[in-house]
Amino acid sequence: MKTRRIDCVLGVDVGGTKTACAAVDRDGAILLRTDVRSPSDDGDEMMGALLDLISRSIEGCAELDLAVRAVGVGAAGFILQPEGLMLEAPNIAWRMVPVKRLVAERIGLPSFLDNDANVAASGERFAGVCRGVDDFAYITLGTGIGGGIFVGGSIYRGYRGTGAEIGHMVVDPDGPPCECGGRGCLEALASGTALERAAVKLVAADPDSALWQACGGDLAGLTGEMVSEAAEGGDNAALASFSDIAYYLGLGIVSLIHALGPEKVVLGGGVSHSGHLLLDDVRRVVAERGIPVLVESVSIELSTLGTEAGLIGAAALAWEGIGTLR
Amino acid sequence: MKTRRIDCVLGVDVGGTKTACAAVDRDGAILLRTDVRSPSDDGDEMMGALLDLISRSIEGCAELDLAVRAVGVGAAGFILQPEGLMLEAPNIAWRMVPVKRLVAERIGLPSFLDNDANVAASGERFAGVCRGVDDFAYITLGTGIGGGIFVGGSIYRGYRGTGAEIGHMVVDPDGPPCECGGRGCLEALASGTALERAAVKLVAADPDSALWQACGGDLAGLTGEMVSEAAEGGDNAALASFSDIAYYLGLGIVSLIHALGPEKVVLGGGVSHSGHLLLDDVRRVVAERGIPVLVESVSIELSTLGTEAGLIGAAALAWEGIGTLR
Repeated sequence: MKTRRIDCVLGVDVGGTKTACAAVDRDGAILLRTDVRSPSDDGDEMMGALLDLISRSIEGCAELDLAVRAVGVGAAGFILQPEGLMLEAPNIAWRMVPVKRLVAERIGLPSFLDNDANVAASGERFAGVCRGVDDFAYITLGTGIGGGIFVGGSIYRGYRGTGAEIGHMVVDPDGPPCECGGRGCLEALASGTALERAAVKLVAADPDSALWQACGGDLAGLTGEMVSEAAEGGDNAALASFSDIAYYLGLGIVSLIHALGPEKVVLGGGVSHSGHLLLDDVRRVVAERGIPVLVESVSIELSTLGTEAGLIGAAALAWEGIGTLR
Repeated sequence: MKTRRIDCVLGVDVGGTKTACAAVDRDGAILLRTDVRSPSDDGDEMMGALLDLISRSIEGCAELDLAVRAVGVGAAGFILQPEGLMLEAPNIAWRMVPVKRLVAERIGLPSFLDNDANVAASGERFAGVCRGVDDFAYITLGTGIGGGIFVGGSIYRGYRGTGAEIGHMVVDPDGPPCECGGRGCLEALASGTALERAAVKLVAADPDSALWQACGGDLAGLTGEMVSEAAEGGDNAALASFSDIAYYLGLGIVSLIHALGPEKVVLGGGVSHSGHLLLDDVRRVVAERGIPVLVESVSIELSTLGTEAGLIGAAALAWEGIGTLR
């Protein structure tokens, strides 16, 4: 007697150092998971590793009587849609690589590519804090800042697929230079990198800060994790560093809410593990600087998917791509 | 023999001083038009005048063998959708007025309400510079700054209908106070009011400016029209005033493009009559401060509907509401 095979999709989270692949069912549960190193310096090698990982995962699924229906891939970068063409990736040597087509051709399954933040936003709607929410903005706080915007129940990609670069909204015209070549972008003022920069400045003026010990007296070695830990411990300079980025994050969210009128704004990404250190300040800035009738109904919340947002979200992309989500 | 009646809709543009009503056909042509004074200080009187205007326009249409199918109303304010409930209007004494329901009940036709900027954006797509464009942002530059955002071919209203308050994106955290209670909003830095403020400052430092004569030596009497005229004549202070607001407008547009990835950004409203004085500077700021791969494909253009954007747009709202647009 043949057992009934369970349908699943593969979600792939391509990172600069590590790539993870998971088989995910219709309910968002991870059934099988494989992680490999990312050969991110060599575009061809990276593509080969990705295709190998997917092929092996499909074999693994077959052994478990899981039928893979589609593949969703999430990776940081500017992506042309609906082609799924990676125009430029910040931490992988992919420029003008037709990732979606290459995966579909080699694997022989419907395949989809979207940027890491859009994918994480899709994950939140599939199995996280935005289930049933049609209009929301997801902000990923890490080394940089990315975003995903849902409009009327669908991810909003803009004219060419490059929308929702929330991190590069200008929040201070005279602010510090940004990696993008601009100045005063949200990313330059409220990312993990900005947190470290704020901490270096504040610790330098605070000889009593616990961060002096944490970094061994060398402020150049200060990391976001150290700042988070010290803030958890009540260190004034560390707490003030979080307030500093929360101020700009709040201003960026005010602009987002005024321009888009979402139902929710969700904070995710690495920095959001320390999100409780930001949330009160962010909400206060939004309440103070926003137009009451526009901001009072918007809830600002932390992501609940944690580090698996990318995997679950890439799977959501695949399920949605083959029209079986919702 | 009975002549065949032509279908049309009524578009109504409710302004603080004047309300206009036009019968508009499926091609966006105005067939009949009536203007009345707006009794904007008295909410009930204003509603009565609106209903009278619509009723009389329908009678006028009947005499011309025009069959009115629906009514679209545009007015500045925060509007709850799909109820068409005016929460708060800046220049009319309407607070919590169910305009859509009142018009529909009294007139007995499908009726719709949207804010002036959304309506103007709809007009641009119906019969202006955005025909066939699915993703664009429309910015109305007047005493204040409003906006309308089209996403995937539909006006984007956000969660409760209050989206696209583009004028209240924060572009400078330490900027001047804004009417909304915030600070450094796009409206506070790039509206017609901001143009006048910039001119007062620049003229005060420029004894040779033609604007001294224009305002009779009293800078408090300086108007946007005077600044426009002087700029057309090549006056340095006036031209610098336009550059000043163009800088902030450009920054706001950078944020909009980065966040939304539209195909076009359209500048409309009163100030846009002098739009050619802004356009080069705006485009330059966007090119300088935007991320090339995101901004290079976006065209920034002036509205082509002029003062009739509100009428044509309100008609577009009505046609779209009864499902016969596109």
